[in-house]
Amino acid sequence: MSAAFDFTSAFRPGLPAPAVKFAGFPKYNFVGGHNHPDHIPVDGLIKAAERVLKREGPSLATYGLQSGALGYKLLREFLSKKLKSYGDISASPDEILITSGSGGGLDLVANVLASPGDTVLVEQETYGGALTRLTRFGLKPVGIPLDEEGLRPDALSSTIDRLKSNGIRPRYIYTIPTVQNPTGAIMSEARRADVLKIAQAHSIPILEDECYSDLIWNGRRPPAMYAMSKAGGVIHVGSFSKSIAPAVRIGYVVAPWDVLSRMLALKTDGGTGALDQMILAEFCVSEFNTHVKTLNTGLKAKLDTLTEALAENFGTAAEFVVPEGGIFLWVKLPDNVDTRKLYQTALAAGVAINPGPEWSTNAEHGMSRLRLCFANPSHEAIREGVAALAEVCRRDFGVPARIANVKRA
Amino acid sequence: MSAAFDFTSAFRPGLPAPAVKFAGFPKYNFVGGHNHPDHIPVDGLIKAAERVLKREGPSLATYGLQSGALGYKLLREFLSKKLKSYGDISASPDEILITSGSGGGLDLVANVLASPGDTVLVEQETYGGALTRLTRFGLKPVGIPLDEEGLRPDALSSTIDRLKSNGIRPRYIYTIPTVQNPTGAIMSEARRADVLKIAQAHSIPILEDECYSDLIWNGRRPPAMYAMSKAGGVIHVGSFSKSIAPAVRIGYVVAPWDVLSRMLALKTDGGTGALDQMILAEFCVSEFNTHVKTLNTGLKAKLDTLTEALAENFGTAAEFVVPEGGIFLWVKLPDNVDTRKLYQTALAAGVAINPGPEWSTNAEHGMSRLRLCFANPSHEAIREGVAALAEVCRRDFGVPARIANVKRA
Repeated sequence: MSAAFDFTSAFRPGLPAPAVKFAGFPKYNFVGGHNHPDHIPVDGLIKAAERVLKREGPSLATYGLQSGALGYKLLREFLSKKLKSYGDISASPDEILITSGSGGGLDLVANVLASPGDTVLVEQETYGGALTRLTRFGLKPVGIPLDEEGLRPDALSSTIDRLKSNGIRPRYIYTIPTVQNPTGAIMSEARRADVLKIAQAHSIPILEDECYSDLIWNGRRPPAMYAMSKAGGVIHVGSFSKSIAPAVRIGYVVAPWDVLSRMLALKTDGGTGALDQMILAEFCVSEFNTHVKTLNTGLKAKLDTLTEALAENFGTAAEFVVPEGGIFLWVKLPDNVDTRKLYQTALAAGVAINPGPEWSTNAEHGMSRLRLCFANPSHEAIREGVAALAEVCRRDFGVPARIANVKRA
Repeated sequence: MSAAFDFTSAFRPGLPAPAVKFAGFPKYNFVGGHNHPDHIPVDGLIKAAERVLKREGPSLATYGLQSGALGYKLLREFLSKKLKSYGDISASPDEILITSGSGGGLDLVANVLASPGDTVLVEQETYGGALTRLTRFGLKPVGIPLDEEGLRPDALSSTIDRLKSNGIRPRYIYTIPTVQNPTGAIMSEARRADVLKIAQAHSIPILEDECYSDLIWNGRRPPAMYAMSKAGGVIHVGSFSKSIAPAVRIGYVVAPWDVLSRMLALKTDGGTGALDQMILAEFCVSEFNTHVKTLNTGLKAKLDTLTEALAENFGTAAEFVVPEGGIFLWVKLPDNVDTRKLYQTALAAGVAINPGPEWSTNAEHGMSRLRLCFANPSHEAIREGVAALAEVCRRDFGVPARIANVKRA
């Protein structure tokens, strides 16, 4: 009677493994879409908080402020303008839904378009979190191989045909056309047109994830597929996690109201956090463009440090295409390196990496590859972390054969 | 080829009805857990924002700040103390999970304890949003009748036995013991002990929702069931939506780590909004107690205005038990009034109410009842709104027979 209650028998069957307790970040943190503390515009956010709360603080009294369930109106108005200038997207504030990060958008799109057991087309190398989400919903991701421009239209076409011959109609195509995750590829305008044409010919909607598209060194980018598609059929997702701060949980979905109204019916969070929305909007209206330019200068410098450190410590053992933007580098190590094993031993040495198989639907292709995020660690941490990673890799897999600075010594 | 893309055929089968566009709030807003703009501590929030961002703004650079997925550490530390002083709950910060409102907690509890088709016990009159959530997850809510102290232990016991004889084991019991929604009942300590005893005898976990428990006029309340259960088996959910501001999307779940770690594995929002968490925590540490006292004084005065307006306009046609706290009044009208129909015509007259059947598992019992929320409308709006509601009700249902002030004229 007074025995302790046993929750184990109360859990529903089939729960995923429990989370592990947070024990702080690793010393050399090359995983996750984190930013660096120095890149957070703290003073601007403080001023924005004061201004917006003085003006509109009392509206916190109502769910959704005075803006309805789509999200804070000034933020949607800012986004309407920003989407035009950054991706040539024409969308009214009522065609924009504010979500808890872009992940909130990915979940809602999956839930309005697909049922458990359905197939979704993804890029063969893609955001690991997207793969996890699809699997959790009981969906089947099928990967389309990439080249240096991203999604390959020939492979997309043949995969759709192959599935069709098996009676399978993919529910949507998930693509990251601008600074592809993890490869960093930027899909050309011509390639986008090809992909759109194929999708429309088969009446398959496209989910375009542009989380990283503001982080391009030269500031130039092709138009968003959402903008290019005259017939519609594209849902666009974006985020402020990478351009401002990931802890501020603000992303957005751009779609016609017919689609957003279906998503809203499934959005059960009572609205996205108001202080996050209000302060972000107030900051962005005056400072987004300037901030992003400064941020990109900082990110480019870190990428330079990372590629130099890799060349110095791994030599030709580390192959990569230097991206034109973003926060990550996709690295190929020699074929004998299993990055899932490297992940374990590197972590023990304080170096966190994303093993390739978690970022790919093709475990074999991903096996000797890894993703290194460079926004969070300092320049010094990048240099030390890459050296430590090379040391572990050499010890466990014999590559790189010699550490460069030892060779030079 | 250039025909507009038709999303209708792309949606998955079985989607709920689309949301309707926000067109502003009704003139007399007696629905939803809104607060009044004057009750928002705007100056305190501005000062809190400045302090906490100056001190910890750079930590926005990392997902989860420096606190991990459970939520901002200072907020969980504040809650650990607040839960002890308000509900006698002993919980360490690592036994508290910050969610997007209490609704985020309700969703996570449903998802770790129950599978589609399972049965959940609820109070016969209960939070409409909880019923909607359960139904959306494919769960079957079974209502337990209430009395003036809330959930009836005899009815709980007999319902469990009846279900058992049909081979059904309810996955959990959902109760709002302190300021029950919608009846406002406060469950006595003895009653809580009885309910706990029954639940434990059958090894059924309890989900205790204490969203409104800080809003008690005299500040005195029985201990939380979470605190009383020596054996465990209770999951506690609370919120700042009612005590501070609903647009600030902060609620919490209190449970052993074994349970929270399962919830975290299903929490896909990338963390709860950081600015909401940080500013709220910073404000609450110094001002929560004072603020809640002021708020309760204001709410009590509004309840007085509401009950006076009902007496004046409805006379004996409106029956209710005056609650000792909260933000709503549960009103019984004469049997011939169908509040679902009244809802429609009242809304056309600018008066929004919650029809009883949406707040009950027993549509017949709920039919002539309605819920009136009194926190959002001003005193003047309460008086005018109740008069307008009486006018509509008299026109459509013949009750109240005469409007009191007409009679007096």
